[in-house]
Amino acid sequence: MYRNKTCGELRIEDLNREVTLAGWVQKIRRMGGMIFVDLRDRYGITQLIFNQEINPELCDKASKLGREWVIQVKGKVMERSNKNKNLPSGDIEINVLDFTVLNSADTPPFTIEDDTDGGDDLRMKYRYLDLRRNIVRQNLELRHQLAFETRRYLDSHHFMEVETPVLIGSTPEGARDFLVPSRMNPGEFYALPQSPQTLKQLLMVSGFDRYFQIVKCFRDEDLRADRQPEFTQIDCEMSFIEQEDILLMFEGLIKHLFKAVKGIDLPDFPRMTYADAMSRYGSDKPDTRFAMQLTEIKDLTVGKGFGVFDSSEYIGAICAAGCAAYTRKQLDELTEFVKRPQIGAKGLIYVRCESDGNYKSSVDKFYAPDDLGRWAARCQAKPGDLLLILCGETEKTQKQLCELRLEMASRLELKDKNTFNCLWVIDFPLLEKDEELGRYFAKHHPFTSPKPEDIPLLTTDPGLVRANAYDIVINGVEIGGGSIRIHNSDLQKKMFQVLGFTEEKAQSQFGFLMNAFKFGAPPHGGIAFGLDRLVAIFAGLDSIRDCIAFPKNNSGRDVMFGAPSVVEQAQLDELHLLSTYKK
Amino acid sequence: MYRNKTCGELRIEDLNREVTLAGWVQKIRRMGGMIFVDLRDRYGITQLIFNQEINPELCDKASKLGREWVIQVKGKVMERSNKNKNLPSGDIEINVLDFTVLNSADTPPFTIEDDTDGGDDLRMKYRYLDLRRNIVRQNLELRHQLAFETRRYLDSHHFMEVETPVLIGSTPEGARDFLVPSRMNPGEFYALPQSPQTLKQLLMVSGFDRYFQIVKCFRDEDLRADRQPEFTQIDCEMSFIEQEDILLMFEGLIKHLFKAVKGIDLPDFPRMTYADAMSRYGSDKPDTRFAMQLTEIKDLTVGKGFGVFDSSEYIGAICAAGCAAYTRKQLDELTEFVKRPQIGAKGLIYVRCESDGNYKSSVDKFYAPDDLGRWAARCQAKPGDLLLILCGETEKTQKQLCELRLEMASRLELKDKNTFNCLWVIDFPLLEKDEELGRYFAKHHPFTSPKPEDIPLLTTDPGLVRANAYDIVINGVEIGGGSIRIHNSDLQKKMFQVLGFTEEKAQSQFGFLMNAFKFGAPPHGGIAFGLDRLVAIFAGLDSIRDCIAFPKNNSGRDVMFGAPSVVEQAQLDELHLLSTYKK
Repeated sequence: MYRNKTCGELRIEDLNREVTLAGWVQKIRRMGGMIFVDLRDRYGITQLIFNQEINPELCDKASKLGREWVIQVKGKVMERSNKNKNLPSGDIEINVLDFTVLNSADTPPFTIEDDTDGGDDLRMKYRYLDLRRNIVRQNLELRHQLAFETRRYLDSHHFMEVETPVLIGSTPEGARDFLVPSRMNPGEFYALPQSPQTLKQLLMVSGFDRYFQIVKCFRDEDLRADRQPEFTQIDCEMSFIEQEDILLMFEGLIKHLFKAVKGIDLPDFPRMTYADAMSRYGSDKPDTRFAMQLTEIKDLTVGKGFGVFDSSEYIGAICAAGCAAYTRKQLDELTEFVKRPQIGAKGLIYVRCESDGNYKSSVDKFYAPDDLGRWAARCQAKPGDLLLILCGETEKTQKQLCELRLEMASRLELKDKNTFNCLWVIDFPLLEKDEELGRYFAKHHPFTSPKPEDIPLLTTDPGLVRANAYDIVINGVEIGGGSIRIHNSDLQKKMFQVLGFTEEKAQSQFGFLMNAFKFGAPPHGGIAFGLDRLVAIFAGLDSIRDCIAFPKNNSGRDVMFGAPSVVEQAQLDELHLLSTYKK
Repeated sequence: MYRNKTCGELRIEDLNREVTLAGWVQKIRRMGGMIFVDLRDRYGITQLIFNQEINPELCDKASKLGREWVIQVKGKVMERSNKNKNLPSGDIEINVLDFTVLNSADTPPFTIEDDTDGGDDLRMKYRYLDLRRNIVRQNLELRHQLAFETRRYLDSHHFMEVETPVLIGSTPEGARDFLVPSRMNPGEFYALPQSPQTLKQLLMVSGFDRYFQIVKCFRDEDLRADRQPEFTQIDCEMSFIEQEDILLMFEGLIKHLFKAVKGIDLPDFPRMTYADAMSRYGSDKPDTRFAMQLTEIKDLTVGKGFGVFDSSEYIGAICAAGCAAYTRKQLDELTEFVKRPQIGAKGLIYVRCESDGNYKSSVDKFYAPDDLGRWAARCQAKPGDLLLILCGETEKTQKQLCELRLEMASRLELKDKNTFNCLWVIDFPLLEKDEELGRYFAKHHPFTSPKPEDIPLLTTDPGLVRANAYDIVINGVEIGGGSIRIHNSDLQKKMFQVLGFTEEKAQSQFGFLMNAFKFGAPPHGGIAFGLDRLVAIFAGLDSIRDCIAFPKNNSGRDVMFGAPSVVEQAQLDELHLLSTYKK
């Protein structure tokens, strides 16, 4: 061992102890005849001191050190005259008796500090240096802790971690698979799993009873801001349970994680139906840290000659507390915001509830103060508040109001990163209609069980069927979701019919599962959490990228390793493949 | 919840309790007016009883049950008159008050019993049924337990589990990579990692200090008997350590696993140099559960006119205790065994040390009883023992003797599955010469550090350089291995030179690592264990296949899922690929 203590553990109690440390040179300062060096390792920082008068030779050698050099140091623990209260080891310093340079270092391309001068691209290219920064490494320590505590909780509840294969068959339904050509079976391909969904269901058929896996999944999609081609799921499944059992078990997991990692006792999670979530928040993953709920006011607006409102299916408002004094410019900004193509509203109507009890609105021409007062009353607006109103098709407008609500919450600084509001969203619709294609798609996946009382609707009005499906939402982020599964092969067949699968297609893609169901499948259901997002929530990060040791950029590229890359033709020949791409 | 008790937990203390169970029908027996049903779940078996006289209707319904049906049962715990001592729940039975069929089942294609009538192919096709068998599921429970206890041990020693990417760059050196075409970067390919070797070294450069990961790795090799294209490693790396620190830390891990999982306290692990292992056992993974070591007798044989011996570089013997009475037929079998092409010996010479003190040998013509007595004395043979002798080139013959030794141990039943002999093999050669290609290859990998005192030999006699490399061996199986790494970019460059890499090739394949080393790499080293093999050793299995939930067959095929498979041309078009394979 190159050390007998780490750079994070020495305290005033260790005074006069002779120790050996090893680590990286964080900082070098010269003061009078002294040299001070901050020595860093994963566990902390310890100050080293060299004295020109006592040991000029050693001091001379120390003066040649550079940032990020790796050294091994022998010395004596001394009390610091200038104590550093911000450092756990700030009461002591090491009077260095001797040291060895283990490795020198070129000057790093950016500073290894919490506030670095390195841009994103540079940091990604030298990710191994970026990971030296405390705030980045701490995210990965947090990730380790969350994964470990997840395993501890699930193991204590008799869940078995079972590894399912990474090289599986391709199912062209849903998102795009990554393919892996098979050399031993020429002309054939494996696919990387988008989730172990069918595999974990088979394990339930096998009687494994309680399964989990923290597992890499893969999706070859064009990467939006916060997507990665490979991501990690906490994947779980249970047998002989009903929805209520799953909700309690995994609410327990999240509570355990907050307690173990942050020392926070969370209250029981509220439950909200999908329908409620949409009408009150315009989202199936509402951020409930703040109110500002959507209020429908259509009935209060009709018949006053304002055609835009009269012809709208839905008119909804949010009440921005204390914003009545917003300037024209601020209101214009909000209007621009909702008109951005990503949001797509046609315009924004406001009502200022002024502090003197008057109302000022962009639709004064059509509505009398009494009318506006009735809107304000329904929205529980107080004098000084601002109503923001959108109108149009119901669901579309609700989603637009959701975006506006989140934007206002940012402006009003209502998104407190130290508050954690968890809830269950339940009773999701089973199916979604693609109006263009004129067919239904599974909102979760084709194995989700309809609510038993809604099964007759499968034939008559599939769009109305509710699923035994649930999402868990923290601070407006969906961190997990799942469902009770179909365990009856006839119902599963029916489901594939509704989804427009021919019998052959269903058989060729999911035949093994439907066959398995014929041999005694237990009732079962499960859930999957996105570990990357869970870590991001715990770390207070907006992006998952800094919770991942070696993330890929938006082109799916790892700039440090230079992957993906062109391979030798011989490798392709062995796979019987020809690249048709011409630069 | 469909149950309030499992099928494994009811005891005599639960008498008269009303319970609800759910599970699979294992067995149905009719006796007089009674029906007995064994109900099975993951946790055990509970006997159900239906009485024709008390409830004829229910009894009637029960008589229609079939094997592997899934039922939910309400009943009362009763004392069994015929107790089953082999079952933890064998003291009680359930007097069934009511039951519900949750799912019926087709007759399974083989019996779901420890001793099944299903052949390998059938079991693999219906793996989800095979996994219902206790002995198979228990292997996977063991696997879970080993992985969990590994994490617990490493976490307690401050190791962080860090997930490294699965989509990385291809390195044509070494074994063949699985390739993954990139759609977003047409004409380019990711590769699946054969191990996270370079990634974990980068994490050491990042100052992560102690890393581990239980991680899937991939190798596209023609599958020998006990290889899988995807396999799982316990991958570990530490900084600021020397070889001794690694040996102690991971000896501690294996001891912890044996204690936690099997309640066994292992003694300290012996250490054996590679040179010793080869000369004493003819193997770098000796099975030390039994002695029967190799003894060189060349010097005792020369000059007696037996040309075969006189012209042999090496003559070695093993002493098979109590086998002097082996018949001609048995000796012929052994001769056939060593002459098989996989072993490749030219012949086998024996010396019978008869119980009356006489010697009988196949080389009596050349050697007098006194000569043979000297051989026997060196081999510590007692009257009644049998010497088996091979000769030829040293290393080749030692390996042949190793095979013979293992064969004899099987015949003599010396391989006790309940004995666990662990040892370290150390001081491996750094390089291996490929005589045909006339160049050196790294015995472990190109990042392994030579012993400092042997560095000068790198230039003068590379074959003699010993590495700071070590393997851990249990009962003749290498379950893990690793090395201290090179952390100096100049030494790493030198190593690539010795391995015949041009500077461009080294740079293009491992440039990111050599660049990283320029920014302050700490001394570091690590180890990786094969989890599949570790589970097999703990489970007493010869093959890793039954430690894997969904293994692939020798053609890399999953017969249950039908993977790999042909994909739609549209999928290939998106990847700019053309399959040139014609059936």
